[in-house]
Amino acid sequence: MSASGEVARTPALSYYAVIFTSCRTEGDRGYGAMADKMAALAAQQPGYLGMESARGADGLGITISYWRDEASIAAWKHDTEHQQAQRGGQQTWYADYSVRVAKVERAYGQPAK
Amino acid sequence: MSASGEVARTPALSYYAVIFTSCRTEGDRGYGAMADKMAALAAQQPGYLGMESARGADGLGITISYWRDEASIAAWKHDTEHQQAQRGGQQTWYADYSVRVAKVERAYGQPAK
Repeated sequence: MSASGEVARTPALSYYAVIFTSCRTEGDRGYGAMADKMAALAAQQPGYLGMESARGADGLGITISYWRDEASIAAWKHDTEHQQAQRGGQQTWYADYSVRVAKVERAYGQPAK
Repeated sequence: MSASGEVARTPALSYYAVIFTSCRTEGDRGYGAMADKMAALAAQQPGYLGMESARGADGLGITISYWRDEASIAAWKHDTEHQQAQRGGQQTWYADYSVRVAKVERAYGQPAK
């Protein structure tokens, strides 16, 4: 899924990360448009904190979305348009994928130079 | 950092994820060789469970390493060669980065088709 191409700025701990790792099937078949739409829709959900996304030349993609709590993750998972996209992912777009829900316990970033 | 280009197979819960997100500076300047070396070295550490890595065309990279427990994460963080690489990252290779340590609480993957 698309994101801003920047390291996400997330608030003070704790919060949750949903780690979505995938290998794409061949061809676009509507994937790009869906991914852009889902990224925009996720950003409108209550509890959304940010997203980071990258797909390498070898086809492996990682999208991490950050959320305030488990309830906001569950609500987004059950969003009607998101559920349609999940079915499309299982049936068409992904050869393989994994979803991991994790509680961020520590975080640190780039120190001042 | 390089990885196998596959979704990592991780064991039954719980375990930890170290989410490393970065924006690269211009030019290689030894980055590729260091990244390959660190991926190989990490895989030899006690408690290492797997790694997923992707860098998109916009320059944002995400590397997630999975670990059995906090102790194995701490030991890898303080490995001498890894510490040299961390200094190189701060001084040379990364324009921005973030490290998040998270406990994986739930996981699910591709259902049978």
